[in-house]
Amino acid sequence: LPAPTVLIGVDWGTSNLRALRIADGGEVQAERADPRGAGGLDPADFAAVLADLAGDWLEEGPPVLVCGMAGARGRWREAPYCPCPASLDEVANALVQPEPGRDIWIVPGVAVMDETGLRDVMRGEETQILGLFGEGESGLAVTPGTHSKWATVEDGRLTGFRTFMTGDLFAAVRRDTILGQDMGEPGVDGAAFRRGVVRGLADRALTAALFSVRVETLGGRLEPRGAADYLSGLLIGAEIAAQPHRDRPVVLVGAEALAGRYATALDLAGFARVERADASVAVARGLWRIWRARR
Amino acid sequence: LPAPTVLIGVDWGTSNLRALRIADGGEVQAERADPRGAGGLDPADFAAVLADLAGDWLEEGPPVLVCGMAGARGRWREAPYCPCPASLDEVANALVQPEPGRDIWIVPGVAVMDETGLRDVMRGEETQILGLFGEGESGLAVTPGTHSKWATVEDGRLTGFRTFMTGDLFAAVRRDTILGQDMGEPGVDGAAFRRGVVRGLADRALTAALFSVRVETLGGRLEPRGAADYLSGLLIGAEIAAQPHRDRPVVLVGAEALAGRYATALDLAGFARVERADASVAVARGLWRIWRARR
Repeated sequence: LPAPTVLIGVDWGTSNLRALRIADGGEVQAERADPRGAGGLDPADFAAVLADLAGDWLEEGPPVLVCGMAGARGRWREAPYCPCPASLDEVANALVQPEPGRDIWIVPGVAVMDETGLRDVMRGEETQILGLFGEGESGLAVTPGTHSKWATVEDGRLTGFRTFMTGDLFAAVRRDTILGQDMGEPGVDGAAFRRGVVRGLADRALTAALFSVRVETLGGRLEPRGAADYLSGLLIGAEIAAQPHRDRPVVLVGAEALAGRYATALDLAGFARVERADASVAVARGLWRIWRARR
Repeated sequence: LPAPTVLIGVDWGTSNLRALRIADGGEVQAERADPRGAGGLDPADFAAVLADLAGDWLEEGPPVLVCGMAGARGRWREAPYCPCPASLDEVANALVQPEPGRDIWIVPGVAVMDETGLRDVMRGEETQILGLFGEGESGLAVTPGTHSKWATVEDGRLTGFRTFMTGDLFAAVRRDTILGQDMGEPGVDGAAFRRGVVRGLADRALTAALFSVRVETLGGRLEPRGAADYLSGLLIGAEIAAQPHRDRPVVLVGAEALAGRYATALDLAGFARVERADASVAVARGLWRIWRARR
């Protein structure tokens, strides 16, 4: 017998959303995806999109907990950033209710602040990270993607993070620079990917290192079919080169293909302890833990 | 009385070309521009485009010397790269004749090579640089643009250089990443540009530093109207951060607006001696010197 649903979770990204039926303990019972990301919606649209995607799940009146860009300014309703260090309790007690009278809540994002103000921001990844690290646990979490985050957790608190625009930059370089001419898809030439990583780890001048995609092709050392892999490796290598703590255990969150590429790159960079986690599992467990911790 | 024309020079870039009537000594008598860059032409097109743009100049039969992408593989006719260090004589004696029997010659590009092969390439900038530095002269030349080059000249020989994709990346980031949303034109907020330079000089993790365009705007420290200037500063700062020799004199070649931005950034980086040179003057003088040096 499946455990009864205790929570409907929603991970509402900029360009898509996922709805999750979550049981006690944080287990995912069912999952649905939709392309209507928060980036294209007005505040009044969100409730209707949710009803459209998961109306049948909402009939019995379970609470709904939403993380991600639905809480950004100008979207469903702004949920102001919690400053780092942010504990589970602090995040859980800053939930925002977008539809008065309905049992729907938005998880705030988390921000790194200094004396001059905002230094970095996340919305959504905090939920994954708080799902991965329990009370008293410490480590490094990496969420590869359009905007990769490297976050440190100490004693179950999210103490700091930094954002790298690796995926966003990969797509832009491929679509819109001289390097993208005739460039295929990544994922076909593992050796080219590894050579890119090694170059990205070693060469701190990224705007110059990028030109090596062209020079390596001109010089015949890189096959055109491997250029996208080399570029991906270069950008991931540059991201990893900025990380000082290679002896710390890392939890890598994300989809198979991309996380696999990061695992290869982390290995080349000398990270000895790398664990993989599924993003849906992490977000469901994070939502459940936040829900349970609210007062 | 104007000096008699001794040479028709052509600087044939990827996306446009300039034709120059050059007098003895390298002085520019007249200049014409055209959007038919080498990137969009087949080998058979070049002679016709040149006749169309400067047919009247060719009537008296002056020699024609072409630098730039017309000599790239698959264009008018390939002029193989001269390896660094490259002297005026070496470049002048590697000219290639694209139309048998006609007095038209293409200047080869220059390449940095190592034991494994090609490390970097230029086509066109070598002519500007050989125009700027006479026999026995030394210095650093910077040609800002889509693909900026930093070149060292020792005793009149081009001894090495490195390419930075600064302009290409600026355009791609602006057109195609989250940072470009609502981003205007650069050149309106000098303070934002200087803050970007300082950040780019200090922060070696460029893919993370780029995300500061977003965070600075979210945090209210950067006005949206200054975001393009801040981004431009960040990328130029990152380019300059990679340069080890800040005590050397620099010659900055290029159009007023962009060279002015580089001059500001070089000043912030501590380069004490920066001289400006006009690109047309440099290329005309380079073509004339190469023509005179051929055997």
